[in-house]
Amino acid sequence: MTADTLLDLSRSLTGIEMDTAPQTLAAYGSDQGPVLEYVNPLAVVWARSVEQVQQILRWASRTGTTVVPRGAGTGVSGGAHATAGCIVLSLERMNRILEIRPEDELAIVEPGVINADLNAAAAEFGLMYAPDPASYRVSTVGGNVATNAGGLRCAKYGVTRDSVLSLDVVLADGTLISTGQETFKGVAGYDLTSLFTGSEGTLGVVVGITVRLRYLPVDVCTIAGFFPDIESAAAGVLAVGRARVQPAIMELLDAETMVALDTAHGSNLRSRGAALLLIQTDGYGAAAEADVVRSVLGELGGQISLEGSEEALQLVDLRRHSRGDAIHTEHRVGEDVAVPRSRLVSYIAELNRMAREHEVRLKVVAHAGDGNLHPTFWVDKTEGSAGLQRLDAALDESIALALAMGGTITGEHGVGQFKLRWLAQEQQEQVLELQRRIKAVFDPAGILNPGKAILTS
Amino acid sequence: MTADTLLDLSRSLTGIEMDTAPQTLAAYGSDQGPVLEYVNPLAVVWARSVEQVQQILRWASRTGTTVVPRGAGTGVSGGAHATAGCIVLSLERMNRILEIRPEDELAIVEPGVINADLNAAAAEFGLMYAPDPASYRVSTVGGNVATNAGGLRCAKYGVTRDSVLSLDVVLADGTLISTGQETFKGVAGYDLTSLFTGSEGTLGVVVGITVRLRYLPVDVCTIAGFFPDIESAAAGVLAVGRARVQPAIMELLDAETMVALDTAHGSNLRSRGAALLLIQTDGYGAAAEADVVRSVLGELGGQISLEGSEEALQLVDLRRHSRGDAIHTEHRVGEDVAVPRSRLVSYIAELNRMAREHEVRLKVVAHAGDGNLHPTFWVDKTEGSAGLQRLDAALDESIALALAMGGTITGEHGVGQFKLRWLAQEQQEQVLELQRRIKAVFDPAGILNPGKAILTS
Ligand SMILES: Cc1cc2nc3c(=O)[nH]c(=O)nc-3n(C[C@H](O)[C@H](O)[C@H](O)COP(=O)(O)OP(=O)(O)OC[C@H]3O[C@@H](n4cnc5c(N)ncnc54)[C@H](O)[C@@H]3O)c2cc1C
Ligand SMILES: Cc1cc2nc3c(=O)[nH]c(=O)nc-3n(C[C@H](O)[C@H](O)[C@H](O)COP(=O)(O)OP(=O)(O)OC[C@H]3O[C@@H](n4cnc5c(N)ncnc54)[C@H](O)[C@@H]3O)c2cc1C
Repeated sequence: MTADTLLDLSRSLTGIEMDTAPQTLAAYGSDQGPVLEYVNPLAVVWARSVEQVQQILRWASRTGTTVVPRGAGTGVSGGAHATAGCIVLSLERMNRILEIRPEDELAIVEPGVINADLNAAAAEFGLMYAPDPASYRVSTVGGNVATNAGGLRCAKYGVTRDSVLSLDVVLADGTLISTGQETFKGVAGYDLTSLFTGSEGTLGVVVGITVRLRYLPVDVCTIAGFFPDIESAAAGVLAVGRARVQPAIMELLDAETMVALDTAHGSNLRSRGAALLLIQTDGYGAAAEADVVRSVLGELGGQISLEGSEEALQLVDLRRHSRGDAIHTEHRVGEDVAVPRSRLVSYIAELNRMAREHEVRLKVVAHAGDGNLHPTFWVDKTEGSAGLQRLDAALDESIALALAMGGTITGEHGVGQFKLRWLAQEQQEQVLELQRRIKAVFDPAGILNPGKAILTS
Repeated sequence: MTADTLLDLSRSLTGIEMDTAPQTLAAYGSDQGPVLEYVNPLAVVWARSVEQVQQILRWASRTGTTVVPRGAGTGVSGGAHATAGCIVLSLERMNRILEIRPEDELAIVEPGVINADLNAAAAEFGLMYAPDPASYRVSTVGGNVATNAGGLRCAKYGVTRDSVLSLDVVLADGTLISTGQETFKGVAGYDLTSLFTGSEGTLGVVVGITVRLRYLPVDVCTIAGFFPDIESAAAGVLAVGRARVQPAIMELLDAETMVALDTAHGSNLRSRGAALLLIQTDGYGAAAEADVVRSVLGELGGQISLEGSEEALQLVDLRRHSRGDAIHTEHRVGEDVAVPRSRLVSYIAELNRMAREHEVRLKVVAHAGDGNLHPTFWVDKTEGSAGLQRLDAALDESIALALAMGGTITGEHGVGQFKLRWLAQEQQEQVLELQRRIKAVFDPAGILNPGKAILTS
């Protein structure tokens, strides 16, 4: 069966780049998600054009082969993982910026364009592509669309969805459709653009993206506030809001995260406080807003960086790259819940209680402006399955509490295959069923990224 | 049949307010859309609770009666028009603001809450509900959601969709579902919230809405620029962008609109220029941005209002209310196309040519920041069908050109029944078919607002 399929693949798709070498299959069969058991795909194919994507999907439909679309494979929920019998369709080589139209403030790109490359190109016109996941130097715009990625500055500028105007999508049967429009506003028909955004490759393969660009801010001010405890830092988040300042970035780091950064970079953050708030204001009002932020944080007992100090900026840079600290002697799971903003403090306090009770380690960073938290739980690998069980118990409890507070299981990373086990706790059966039926409208044979994003039974 | 249905209605739905008086049927059977022939609904029913909406839809499903959901009836595309044999389900009496949570920066409202009432309530906490259609004093938040309404300040703050976090929706069969989450970000499952937003009552009845609130700006500056011609005013729009200022409001009025305002209000706008640009900046940077705007507009030959002058603010107010000038001796159709920003000038020039060629009158206002135009075409009623034919020809040509420029047939008003005739020019058959199939997922019997928003064959 497998051999037949592969033979058919190589005969049918002549001219399309593919590879079946074991190390390639392993590399493209996994992503950054916490999945413990990998399966290899049958093959990896790289499309160079829309037509090739269509050819590949027509072939997959004909042969009933499942397809896992893939950008850079930086997803952390297991969305780009291979599943048994699938081929991986990599979009990374469709990486041309097709057009930047500065006066229309938009760009048209292929899905494999790296987020940072689009930003570099836009900057030449004084523009930016706002969504900036911490993976912006490596992740693709197509992957960002498929996960509806957030980022640091989405506190002010919104998530990926808020910048996507129009999509070209190849459906499971090879049909090419176009959604949305090249204008900032448009309400003709149902919002298919939003439906594809965040659908994690289960409804269609995104082959072209028109995004809105924003103005590169004329000024940026960065403030670091060290606080004696997480409560006063979180109070700072609400105080900035009451002062009606909308920061571009508002990140909260707990004591354990500061320790981790100190260990990795030789800094001494932890000695200066037990919680760190990093705030960036931008635009024509940046300096005035920074003054207000410094003053309200100071009143709460924060030790605030001085105007013009470079340190805060360096700290934001550290924060941006703080995820890449995987330690191979540990099982780590990074979570991605969101809670209403006022619940940040009590949620973090409860997380710490859970970590103590389940005897797991914990550190927390939060996109505090959005109430989106990234707790990381971990145990030592030497503990074996006992450690993994406690890890799972802590995770389950943390998810249940976020939901009880009116939150969500995933603020920006997506459900993938890893968070499927919690989805039915968030969404009622009728909502799950509607999603199944929408999936059936777009992909009746179920060949696109099965077992991800939605509960299929 | 009709009498039977009505009898069944009044027997089945005891305790639900309803009316079948001819003048009620006529009032609730039409909206502000340019539909020439009205039909009366069988009855108008007013729900007071979610349960009543469920009861009504269960009854409608059982009897196969079609249902037209209705907010304030201010829609201008004919979305809330009655169709033959329908009942109108008015949500206007479900008008309680259920909760405002200032620290979470959100509000939970029933669908019949008037936009302005929500804003007044939010203002007490220094917050605002950003989407502000010019109809904000009368239209409902539920109607705003169902049309994905835009507004003046959506240049900076986005359209209705960008402020909706979560929806409670009653489906055609009476099932109550909940979409989205109470947090600013969330990516669990497909984006059903966006799918309902702008679906014009064809997928479900919105019975509860959680919206994000924004900060009331600490400062607002308003600039009026009079220009000798529309070209230099439109150049001003692009120049403000190049200066990287994102105004909250950026409205463009043509000479005919100035004449109309002069006639209605005794002003002398037209004598001061042939095009008027109204710009509002807000937030901590408002004054700095206003300085930049005045300077770039001045360089283009604009006659710019002085700092601190009250006139510009009054002009914005006039503009907000400029739509309500229906004249009963004329057939008027207000359009709602959008084009990429750089095409504003050439599009308006072409509109004027069309008006001349088809011998119809024309005035144009535009949400210039978004490239969203509201041309109004009109002819004298005394001309009879000859005038109407020329009006239609001008409309058709204006739509075709907007599409050829990469635009859309409707930037914010929705398709309703009036714009259905152009929808297939914008969207390919496969996209239309996907929408039909999505409709069938939510409303298999087709009882919800049939003949609106999407092409059913
Ligand atoms: C260090 C690090 C930091 C991160 N920071 C953030 C962050 O701040 N915010 C955030 O939201 N995420 C973050 N992530 C997660 C990840 O980078 C994002 O989810 C990103 O959007 C994935 O892009 P990708 O190109 O790597 O996609 P992949 O991982 O390859 O794919 C992700 C999903 O999208 C689908 N997909 C990919 N391309 C397409 C396409 N063209 N058409 C259809 N489906 C497609 C895949 O099937 C999969 O389901 C981070 C990850 C890392 C490793
Ligand atoms: C003077 C004037 C100025 C305007 N300015 C603007 C503007 O700046 N921007 C803009 O976008 N529009 C504008 N409009 C159009 C109109 O006000 C908007 O479309 C508004 O959102 C309609 O709200 P409504 O409560 O009147 O809804 P209605 O007109 O009653 O209904 C509109 C559509 O929504 C459906 N609907 C209503 N309530 C629900 C519900 N609870 N559940 C499901 N479906 C529902 C109806 O079936 C219909 O299809 C203007 C109209 C006027 C008359």
